[in-house]
Amino acid sequence: MPTPTESDRLRVVLVAPRNPLNIGAAARAMSNFGFHCLRVVNSFEPSFREARSAVGASEILAHAEQFKTVAGAVADCTLVVGTTAVRHREIQHPLRRLEQGARLIRKRLGLGDVALLFGSEKFGLSNEALSHCHWLMRIPTCEENISMNLGQAVAVCLYELVRDSKAARAPKQQEPATAAEFERITTMLLEALRVSGFLKRRRVADADERIRRLVRRLNLPARDAVIWQGILRQMLWKMNAGKEPEI
Amino acid sequence: MPTPTESDRLRVVLVAPRNPLNIGAAARAMSNFGFHCLRVVNSFEPSFREARSAVGASEILAHAEQFKTVAGAVADCTLVVGTTAVRHREIQHPLRRLEQGARLIRKRLGLGDVALLFGSEKFGLSNEALSHCHWLMRIPTCEENISMNLGQAVAVCLYELVRDSKAARAPKQQEPATAAEFERITTMLLEALRVSGFLKRRRVADADERIRRLVRRLNLPARDAVIWQGILRQMLWKMNAGKEPEI
Repeated sequence: MPTPTESDRLRVVLVAPRNPLNIGAAARAMSNFGFHCLRVVNSFEPSFREARSAVGASEILAHAEQFKTVAGAVADCTLVVGTTAVRHREIQHPLRRLEQGARLIRKRLGLGDVALLFGSEKFGLSNEALSHCHWLMRIPTCEENISMNLGQAVAVCLYELVRDSKAARAPKQQEPATAAEFERITTMLLEALRVSGFLKRRRVADADERIRRLVRRLNLPARDAVIWQGILRQMLWKMNAGKEPEI
Repeated sequence: MPTPTESDRLRVVLVAPRNPLNIGAAARAMSNFGFHCLRVVNSFEPSFREARSAVGASEILAHAEQFKTVAGAVADCTLVVGTTAVRHREIQHPLRRLEQGARLIRKRLGLGDVALLFGSEKFGLSNEALSHCHWLMRIPTCEENISMNLGQAVAVCLYELVRDSKAARAPKQQEPATAAEFERITTMLLEALRVSGFLKRRRVADADERIRRLVRRLNLPARDAVIWQGILRQMLWKMNAGKEPEI
């Protein structure tokens, strides 16, 4: 995950975007993932700063920088990466999958500014725009529909940049119930099964062990163990209360 | 990365979405990443099937299934995961970051159907909807703007599911119980708690949801779900039998 300084070194560059709602959506995704520098080259609709889709990101939209050329928008960057859905166009650039490209971008953000270019909704990046790129990156979409919505593509790329590979490991679990608690539940459940007649109808030699294993498989957190004991206690009370008239 | 069969086991469930454009955007992201089963619960705008935002995904939108309840939309699933932006609401569920949650979902897709729930644009998932979930997942957004656009959130979650990681293959697990089985157990347990007097002694407004969550946390294999239903049925019979003399 990039540090705040590193995040501020990323320039998200939208080249010739047509729909202001997509510009706003890009700004929203930027603020979701902690990026702030938005650059817009030749927007089809100049009045994009009011886009309602920039929920929570009006600051980013207000401070977006406008450029007439890609050259101007990437001039201060030490790495320029273009995004593309196309795989087999006569591309003169190295093409990397997002997972790998994002790793290289993260590394570079430790050193200097990086531009990440997104083309227009209809045509993607032009050959002129591509000519400014060091390499290209593609989101691993399916053949059946390779082309993503602009706002969604920005969101996915930025997510990959902040993604924490270590977070995928180490599930933090709730405090588990102790063996003694499992045993108390087992004992109460066995009593409840006896009282209810459940065990009489299903006679097996090793009922105790079967029921103990059944309870163990519940994999209970400690706080739930307490609740289940309360439930069983109450049911036992009720079942025994019902018995009294039979005596 | 899920196999085609596994991808078809994922149900993307939009609960009470307000804007048809977001439903279309969700469909587009699904086709980008190879998922096809879209379910819509109580759409604010019933005529969402024409949403122009579903570029390249009109098939998915045309085949989207509509439901009146979350229970109906998740009935065939063995794992139900809710998405949330909130971190500190008095959440009664385990909360996992997307990176980790997606790994668990991918694993489970090898065994059975999984529902991934997204709430409405304005309010997210309701407590009732959350009570159907086994656990919750959050996209690692920044404090400055935690709430994502619906279509972008769907895109990021599905991307993480197809993302190529070299995660070790999962150990083979027992076939898990379906949401319908959990719901049957919940219903029987609620009845048992009512009959036993448990609920009268501990009055809370949201008893149903609390009990549903309690049962969901049990993490039951399918074969154990059958046993627990038998146990509850017998206890219910006994408690009701005990009642008769009181009449």
